[in-house]
Amino acid sequence: MAISAISHILTKLGMVSTSDHASVVSMNLFVALLCACIVIGHLLEENRWMNESITALVIGLCTGVVILLTTRWKSSHLLVFSEDVFFIYLLPPIIFNAGFQVKKKQFFRNFMTIMLFGAVGTLISFFIISLGAMYILNKLLNISALEMSLGDYLAIGAIFSATDSVCTLQVLNQDETPLLYSVVFGEGVVNDATSVVLFNAIQSFDLSNINSKTAFQFIGNFLYLFISSTLLGVLAGLLSAYIIKKLYFGRHSTDREVALMMLMAYFSYMLAELCNLSAILTVFFCGIVMSHYTWHNVTESSRVTTKHTFATLSFVAEIFIFLYVGMDALDIERWKLVSDSPAKSVKLSSILLGLVLLGRAAFVFPLSFLSNLTKKSKYDKIDWKQQITIWWAGLMRGAVSMALAYNKFTQSDAKLRKNAFMITSTITVVLFSTMVFGLITKPLVRYLLPSPKHFTSMTSSEPSSPKSFIIEPLLSNGQCSESNGQNVPRPSSLRMLLTTPSRSVHHYWRKFDDSFMRPVFGGRGFVPFVPGSPTERDNPQWR
Amino acid sequence: MAISAISHILTKLGMVSTSDHASVVSMNLFVALLCACIVIGHLLEENRWMNESITALVIGLCTGVVILLTTRWKSSHLLVFSEDVFFIYLLPPIIFNAGFQVKKKQFFRNFMTIMLFGAVGTLISFFIISLGAMYILNKLLNISALEMSLGDYLAIGAIFSATDSVCTLQVLNQDETPLLYSVVFGEGVVNDATSVVLFNAIQSFDLSNINSKTAFQFIGNFLYLFISSTLLGVLAGLLSAYIIKKLYFGRHSTDREVALMMLMAYFSYMLAELCNLSAILTVFFCGIVMSHYTWHNVTESSRVTTKHTFATLSFVAEIFIFLYVGMDALDIERWKLVSDSPAKSVKLSSILLGLVLLGRAAFVFPLSFLSNLTKKSKYDKIDWKQQITIWWAGLMRGAVSMALAYNKFTQSDAKLRKNAFMITSTITVVLFSTMVFGLITKPLVRYLLPSPKHFTSMTSSEPSSPKSFIIEPLLSNGQCSESNGQNVPRPSSLRMLLTTPSRSVHHYWRKFDDSFMRPVFGGRGFVPFVPGSPTERDNPQWR
Repeated sequence: MAISAISHILTKLGMVSTSDHASVVSMNLFVALLCACIVIGHLLEENRWMNESITALVIGLCTGVVILLTTRWKSSHLLVFSEDVFFIYLLPPIIFNAGFQVKKKQFFRNFMTIMLFGAVGTLISFFIISLGAMYILNKLLNISALEMSLGDYLAIGAIFSATDSVCTLQVLNQDETPLLYSVVFGEGVVNDATSVVLFNAIQSFDLSNINSKTAFQFIGNFLYLFISSTLLGVLAGLLSAYIIKKLYFGRHSTDREVALMMLMAYFSYMLAELCNLSAILTVFFCGIVMSHYTWHNVTESSRVTTKHTFATLSFVAEIFIFLYVGMDALDIERWKLVSDSPAKSVKLSSILLGLVLLGRAAFVFPLSFLSNLTKKSKYDKIDWKQQITIWWAGLMRGAVSMALAYNKFTQSDAKLRKNAFMITSTITVVLFSTMVFGLITKPLVRYLLPSPKHFTSMTSSEPSSPKSFIIEPLLSNGQCSESNGQNVPRPSSLRMLLTTPSRSVHHYWRKFDDSFMRPVFGGRGFVPFVPGSPTERDNPQWR
Repeated sequence: MAISAISHILTKLGMVSTSDHASVVSMNLFVALLCACIVIGHLLEENRWMNESITALVIGLCTGVVILLTTRWKSSHLLVFSEDVFFIYLLPPIIFNAGFQVKKKQFFRNFMTIMLFGAVGTLISFFIISLGAMYILNKLLNISALEMSLGDYLAIGAIFSATDSVCTLQVLNQDETPLLYSVVFGEGVVNDATSVVLFNAIQSFDLSNINSKTAFQFIGNFLYLFISSTLLGVLAGLLSAYIIKKLYFGRHSTDREVALMMLMAYFSYMLAELCNLSAILTVFFCGIVMSHYTWHNVTESSRVTTKHTFATLSFVAEIFIFLYVGMDALDIERWKLVSDSPAKSVKLSSILLGLVLLGRAAFVFPLSFLSNLTKKSKYDKIDWKQQITIWWAGLMRGAVSMALAYNKFTQSDAKLRKNAFMITSTITVVLFSTMVFGLITKPLVRYLLPSPKHFTSMTSSEPSSPKSFIIEPLLSNGQCSESNGQNVPRPSSLRMLLTTPSRSVHHYWRKFDDSFMRPVFGGRGFVPFVPGSPTERDNPQWR
């Protein structure tokens, strides 16, 4: 989808040379609003009911109102962006940063649980929302006038499966509840990637005649996209690690290293677009691999720079999207199209919101039960309070949902009734979930997980707590695995692989990583120790 | 000039949705080539004959040849960019970074000399090249067929006044020759800004009927652009410093600070475009003010991040331009247009190159003489070897010249004979000066300034060497000025102001800075001292 816009920018740029004064004014106002969001967001940080997303949404809404008044109810927009802008400029930094900042130790320790929630859970949620929307909208509402196709219903499923867990992550403390934090964070990013891949798979698929064969083709297509995109991202990350390790050793240049990391990340994204893969998934895994290998091969300045640059880009991109959604919510043209049936519009939004709640409940509790079955230690199990927190964390809808909705429902004619209906109800769901659910999040989490001391003790009793890994890079290969094995009984048989698959996969991965991957591609412990080097455990404030 | 492209991007983006596979392939290749330039540039770093610019040019030329062969002499381009891209995306980071990384201490100490060379010198060079081109091209060549207007000659003057001193700066050592380094560096950035402002002033000026009144109008216009752009940049920088100092004190957030600094820099650029000022000059002064105040108000991580991010962006933008110029040099269409008169093309390039040499000699030696008259200490005087080095440092033509030439001579019809002639000769001058002069630079500078020890002793005997300022921030206001006064006799009378104006201006500026500016806007010495905080004296590898 990004190809057209890229080619457009590259080839058509500057061919129209009419100087548009108004659009520079708009751009100035927009940048000023971004600055305002950052400053006001900072001032409101003490007030933990608010967060950056809500601030940006509210500022966007207020600006929309002001513009509506000054243009006499004609427009609420400062700028009109193509939905491609989201996919070329705004989503890649958000997703890449999510991969780059992910706590790999916890991520891989809880890999099975995270994949269960992030991939399988998203699929369950997708089917429930798609089928539910198809059934309820056809039965209860006289929706046939909108001429919704099967592709539209599937797209709705993908759009409303994409969660936004930033709000909950700001409340959770990763030192108090490491398991919960890593599951919520990990699920969030895998969920984003899965829903985008699902969305792309649907878009590129012929839905005119469906039978069991095409269903298998669809699953095959999905798996092909998922696996090949992942592999491409991993390869790009490893290539960057190898180049920097081989060439730059002993003679570092921060600017070159930072430039190379950024360009390689962008290159992986473009290459995935070129091969018609899911570029979002590719940059996500490129980010993970880069933070696991490449990041350790560069100078300390490069580490600080890349970490904060990627986080900043992601942060700005997210504020940008919420600010835009806030303004877009007041698009008067769109509301006029749906204004003859306000009841239908409200019903549609409420049904979608209900399906979101249901779709999430339908996988969080059963999958938690499944996940608990494989765990022996009671500290690794997810108790019911944590299950409710996980359920709640994924109720907010945000940037990815909006981007997918714009992509699907502004592609053809934006003035079409169906498209106006879908965009307005997506905006309603995003606004409602972000602002209402978002405001409730903190009191709820504080009520469910009241005493920090309870969780601190839980963390310290947990075998091989994250902190014990910090000093490991100073030890050699073998010792590293040994020190790990002192706490956890070594899984030595097939039985272990069946009962604790996640832990076991992590163990074998570590062995492989230490004995082959790190010596070749660098990484923690395989580069000279720099005193005062920043560790990965610094809090990432924005995911 | 950037307005049209910005508005175009914002409003027209994505309206054409034909998916162009070829252009994504091109983009991939281009990013891969950028990576190759960085890696090969690093490998060739030991070989001090080469530098990054030459590497990028050579890789661009080689790629151009390969594309010519594969497309069977039809095209040498991977991508065709509008010249606006240079001004919106590539020049701003280069110029902002130049301002951000400038050694302010040395810059303000040698402020008069730098402004003399950078502003007055560029004007002299501009007049000599413009008048010389007009005279010689009319007399010696039968150039009337090209229908060059007065505006074209003035544009040629501005285009070939913009120097590129990166190559010389890589050879000079700022600890061995601080005066020379700061003059060459400072002159380079002031020169860039001056030539862009000149170019804009010419573009926006009615040249149809010239008399003494319009000449004064032109000078007034130039001064208005220069002063108001500078003020806007300073105000934007101070605003960012004030916001961060007031709001963020004691509760820092690196991502917010970095985002705010980047957005404010971009905001100053957009605001200058909005007011039809010289955006390049605005970001340059915004960069200086930001590094003098804002940079000291943020966390250590933010300092490292902003410093390296700006340097990296500038570095990538410069490689990008040289790579593009390398490929563009083989534009077969353009060469066909000039191929019927190869002698004329060669003559044109040689004349321009001669004028560049002459125009630079015409101000470096007289202005050095003037500058030496005002200096009493023999260590502050510029000896003839240093004069030759300054002269040589400004002979290379690079990114800015190319960007201005693309802007002027591809705006209308690129297929016009005149435009083809001017672009090909600009490319010839850039290629020749960067590659031939660039390769000679190191041996020449080593021959002229042979013994590092000579200059080390010179530095240490110099009153208030840069190093003595390093510990000053730890002292309070008054002490700071006192310790400065211990070495330099305090300028106490009008006589001092006349004989050593530069030193005196610097002295009064410091007093004002310490007693008013820093307490309000922060800056070194007015924020809590952070141990291990990076100082500004770290080598900037790219200017």
